[in-house]
Amino acid sequence: MNVAQIIRNIETHLELVIPKHNFSEVYRYGVLPPGKAFRPQLVSAIYADYCNESDHKFLEDPKTPVNYLASAVEVHHAYTLLHDDLPSMDDDDTRRGKPATHIKFNEWKALLAGDGLQTASFALLAKYGHKNLGLILKFFSWALGPKGLIQGQYLDLSEEMTKGIDELILTHQYKTARLIQTSILLGYWSSSATTDYRTSKQLFRLGHSVGVVFQLLDDLTELVDEQLSQHELAVNPWLTANKDLCFKEIISDLEKIENIITSEELASTKKVLANYFKKIEGLLVEGKTNITKHSEIDLVPVISLLNRINR
Amino acid sequence: MNVAQIIRNIETHLELVIPKHNFSEVYRYGVLPPGKAFRPQLVSAIYADYCNESDHKFLEDPKTPVNYLASAVEVHHAYTLLHDDLPSMDDDDTRRGKPATHIKFNEWKALLAGDGLQTASFALLAKYGHKNLGLILKFFSWALGPKGLIQGQYLDLSEEMTKGIDELILTHQYKTARLIQTSILLGYWSSSATTDYRTSKQLFRLGHSVGVVFQLLDDLTELVDEQLSQHELAVNPWLTANKDLCFKEIISDLEKIENIITSEELASTKKVLANYFKKIEGLLVEGKTNITKHSEIDLVPVISLLNRINR
Repeated sequence: MNVAQIIRNIETHLELVIPKHNFSEVYRYGVLPPGKAFRPQLVSAIYADYCNESDHKFLEDPKTPVNYLASAVEVHHAYTLLHDDLPSMDDDDTRRGKPATHIKFNEWKALLAGDGLQTASFALLAKYGHKNLGLILKFFSWALGPKGLIQGQYLDLSEEMTKGIDELILTHQYKTARLIQTSILLGYWSSSATTDYRTSKQLFRLGHSVGVVFQLLDDLTELVDEQLSQHELAVNPWLTANKDLCFKEIISDLEKIENIITSEELASTKKVLANYFKKIEGLLVEGKTNITKHSEIDLVPVISLLNRINR
Repeated sequence: MNVAQIIRNIETHLELVIPKHNFSEVYRYGVLPPGKAFRPQLVSAIYADYCNESDHKFLEDPKTPVNYLASAVEVHHAYTLLHDDLPSMDDDDTRRGKPATHIKFNEWKALLAGDGLQTASFALLAKYGHKNLGLILKFFSWALGPKGLIQGQYLDLSEEMTKGIDELILTHQYKTARLIQTSILLGYWSSSATTDYRTSKQLFRLGHSVGVVFQLLDDLTELVDEQLSQHELAVNPWLTANKDLCFKEIISDLEKIENIITSEELASTKKVLANYFKKIEGLLVEGKTNITKHSEIDLVPVISLLNRINR
């Protein structure tokens, strides 16, 4: 997967939906550069797998319909980050190693740019204007709306998620997995005019497991520092009574991921996930001493499963 | 136009796109009751005019496709109000005679509910899932996104709009008229599977004039109080050197509105506008003494034009 091409497409598409002057720099600052572009990579990889386009040549032309969907997902993700960082939400001053948008500009500009980016993500779906647009709009607005991603934000900010393992997994499912499921299903639904219910359901499950593992591994890699912040000590699920259940969940999800990418023969998708898991594996191996100091977890089975998907 | 039916449909549709518990009361508080529901009334009236459904029986069933569009417009409008009132934006404590959402609940809840309502407005477009959905999604996300409504918010908050009459009209065009144009065009595009370019263009112009007049009349009726706030004295365009240009603009827009509703034979739409203008006329006649004390405007031609449309 050529990440540079994906990022170039996002840049090109963003210019199509923002004005030329004035406020445009706030949008650009909030979206670019888009980090690892994990979600648009998933859109493209699933599309490639179901179209049998293993050369990924479709990435070369920004006007290939599926590329608008990949950008829509990233632009939507960027809006959630802009709003997440605001003082009344998570109150974070930095994002991806640079000042958060409301620090760089100001609060109303970050809030307004976030609003605009959300609308822009739908403008990119409209530019896609291709196979299964009605279905795509339906899923996108359901998964990322009040019954999905926004409900996850609510569970997180209202501290519902610290109540127990069920609330934690539910929060991760809504807040993180819904956008990953969207990425995966958009890739599939744009690959063919007809959609198979069984495949959609399998991919929905794949997205759920990838999303939950993504978030739990993220929480785990937070423990590589020698000293943890008060906030981390209070909310990290690997430091609570839930840690054994987190461990069970992560092992079960990694197995499901392995099974689905094998049964559906998802070669390109496997590479995207393997790349990500490799990075996580590196962080875990390097930070092992500190992690096990903070939390008595047996990292061996986790690393071994990550490794199996990496092969 | 049966406003009670329109509002009942909005309530029914909102329940479809929000969760049953927890955060749902914040969404409901932010949307209901929806004031005069002017924008959904426009969607329905234009639809009725182009379908020749002068009995408006389609309003009785919430599942009639166009009714989802009317609700989508109102839910989108509600999200802009929730965010507008936030401390970093206009910092307003009250809305429609009750505490603003961030006062009633708190800031992150109002911000998050606004985000969710924006997504929900697209979920309602998806439920429409009918004639010209691709075109409707394209216009909706363009008109209300970074190149439209959001640009209007930017021009307003950055105080660009106080620089001159052109900036003022541009701000009203983006911030107010775009949503009104959206309402009108959604009504037209859902009335028939084919769309006529000339008619779409005429209705785009109608929406522009209605939006600009709506905002300028709103500014004018702000002057009916004997004492004006410092903020009002600073920003009201009827108190500046631009007042003659505002006057010219309002007269020219009212004439355009009259011409288009006559040439397109928009009987239902005429009633919705006449109702609104009647209310404004009442306010202007009643507040005449104070208005002319604050600003030397000849209200007679404005009232006479409002009256002509009211007939």
